[in-house]
Amino acid sequence: MTSRREAILRASATAIAERGVRGLRVSDIAEVAGVSPGLLYYHFKDRDGLLAAALTYINDQALTYRQAASGSGSSREQLVDYLLAEIQDLPEVVENSLAWNELRACAVYETPLREPLAQASRQWTTETAEAIRLTRALGEISDRTDPEHAAVTITALTEGLSSRWLSGELTTDAARTHLRIALDILIPPKGHNRPR
Amino acid sequence: MTSRREAILRASATAIAERGVRGLRVSDIAEVAGVSPGLLYYHFKDRDGLLAAALTYINDQALTYRQAASGSGSSREQLVDYLLAEIQDLPEVVENSLAWNELRACAVYETPLREPLAQASRQWTTETAEAIRLTRALGEISDRTDPEHAAVTITALTEGLSSRWLSGELTTDAARTHLRIALDILIPPKGHNRPR
Repeated sequence: MTSRREAILRASATAIAERGVRGLRVSDIAEVAGVSPGLLYYHFKDRDGLLAAALTYINDQALTYRQAASGSGSSREQLVDYLLAEIQDLPEVVENSLAWNELRACAVYETPLREPLAQASRQWTTETAEAIRLTRALGEISDRTDPEHAAVTITALTEGLSSRWLSGELTTDAARTHLRIALDILIPPKGHNRPR
Repeated sequence: MTSRREAILRASATAIAERGVRGLRVSDIAEVAGVSPGLLYYHFKDRDGLLAAALTYINDQALTYRQAASGSGSSREQLVDYLLAEIQDLPEVVENSLAWNELRACAVYETPLREPLAQASRQWTTETAEAIRLTRALGEISDRTDPEHAAVTITALTEGLSSRWLSGELTTDAARTHLRIALDILIPPKGHNRPR
């Protein structure tokens, strides 16, 4: 990615996180990026093209910090760290999560955003399912876990908890603790039997 | 509730579902309700007061259709029906869910909405935890289930799946099936042991 293109996409993410998508104009993003609106039209054709590119950028950023959060524990511990990375107090994670949360909600009203959003969402779910499948194959997650179902459930739950976290209904700690406990149930360590 | 007040709140829910909250003016809602803006200011003081009252109304409507969906099966089956009621093709459920989804997302930007939203959300979570606790006490849900944690997880997951459903990423059937499978894991029937 050229650095100018990246600067524009980063500015788009910031503008979306701060101002929301509704009513956001190409000229607002140009202002945040410190470039001319003409340059944005040149690179991204129109507002929908810019928002779709911003969505992909935001999704890629999330992948980067998910991977960075994976520690050096067992494969399952790394997976849990990777999943918990969505809810962290780091400014870049908060900004990225705000932008994703806003794009998710406004896709209901801005139909051109639906397909790029669904694609980014599928990518996240597929990546999560693959990580669950690998960890299960290593014998660290119960064989009864269905990776595809677990991935949809975990990513949707993460979005639900994230939304409550971003509006201050849940603290960072509370949101992470709920997610961690849910992961013990949704992707349980193999042989981890709890009393029924 | 007087019928005029109810008509205004119903119109508010419709306006929020159709147009979103951002940029929504009291005069837009007055137009949908077929009353004068002055009457809305008289009843609800200002835009924030109207949105907070609409939020409570939307939460109450959801309670009504959750209760209506509970069939005549076992206590756990009734609980599952009640939880699945959030995702249905009925026009009133779609409209109500759109409005809730929008209020949830915009509380990030409209801070006066945060407290009424958190309160409505707590009410839903508490009601769900209470239903889980009762069903567990009847011996129909595993004793290992923590009602409070399960209620936060299930309501947040429902919001996450609902958001994907409302933007067309998941069909009604797919969203309901994911929720149903997740409920088998999060609030498992007592003694229901699956191979590990």
